[in-house]
Amino acid sequence: METHEDPMMRKFRKELNAGTVSLVLLTILERSSEPLYGYQIAKRIEGEWQQGAPVKQGTLYPVLRSMEENGLLSSEVEPSVSGPPRKYYSITERGREVLKEWTIVWLKTRDFVETVLEENGG
Amino acid sequence: METHEDPMMRKFRKELNAGTVSLVLLTILERSSEPLYGYQIAKRIEGEWQQGAPVKQGTLYPVLRSMEENGLLSSEVEPSVSGPPRKYYSITERGREVLKEWTIVWLKTRDFVETVLEENGG
Repeated sequence: METHEDPMMRKFRKELNAGTVSLVLLTILERSSEPLYGYQIAKRIEGEWQQGAPVKQGTLYPVLRSMEENGLLSSEVEPSVSGPPRKYYSITERGREVLKEWTIVWLKTRDFVETVLEENGG
Repeated sequence: METHEDPMMRKFRKELNAGTVSLVLLTILERSSEPLYGYQIAKRIEGEWQQGAPVKQGTLYPVLRSMEENGLLSSEVEPSVSGPPRKYYSITERGREVLKEWTIVWLKTRDFVETVLEENGG
């Protein structure tokens, strides 16, 4: 895909994604009426974003695992007819609380960056 | 300051800041008519942001050093009457190019997150 990407660009993209992916994943799981496995989450992300989501599917799995380890998600493994068992994730009460806080931090950070870009862009 | 902050919150904030601080620093240096040293940059950030900038001064220095190592900034050390010599940073041509690309990535990522938050927030 972006194998020739400039190293500084890759670093920036990676850093920016590290936080936003967690926020997006948790938001999708909070609003879902049922537990979701990784591929379903990836598809929902793609569906919301026609231009090609800036998040690669492979980056979701370590984030899901980390969020489960930290009590934001719970999971259940179910057998699949078409392949290996699937791990279905649900948001926990703690996850809902954390999501509220993260959303506030996101909005504040977004406004901060926008202020700098606009003030200096004239 | 936020010594009692929840570890998941700290991690999220740190990840989100990693990318945005680079973007903000580079933007401020691009628009400055003169080289700036760390404290001046911190003051400009504070000035743009009345509510308390989500960026601590100490986090700026390693980012400035890293950007210089990668050719986005150049620096000159000048003696100071009031303390140790100061390192003044300027943006390089390469830094200007990188800033254009980073800004595009920022806008895309911001729109992506906003889409998810809005679509799921109704």
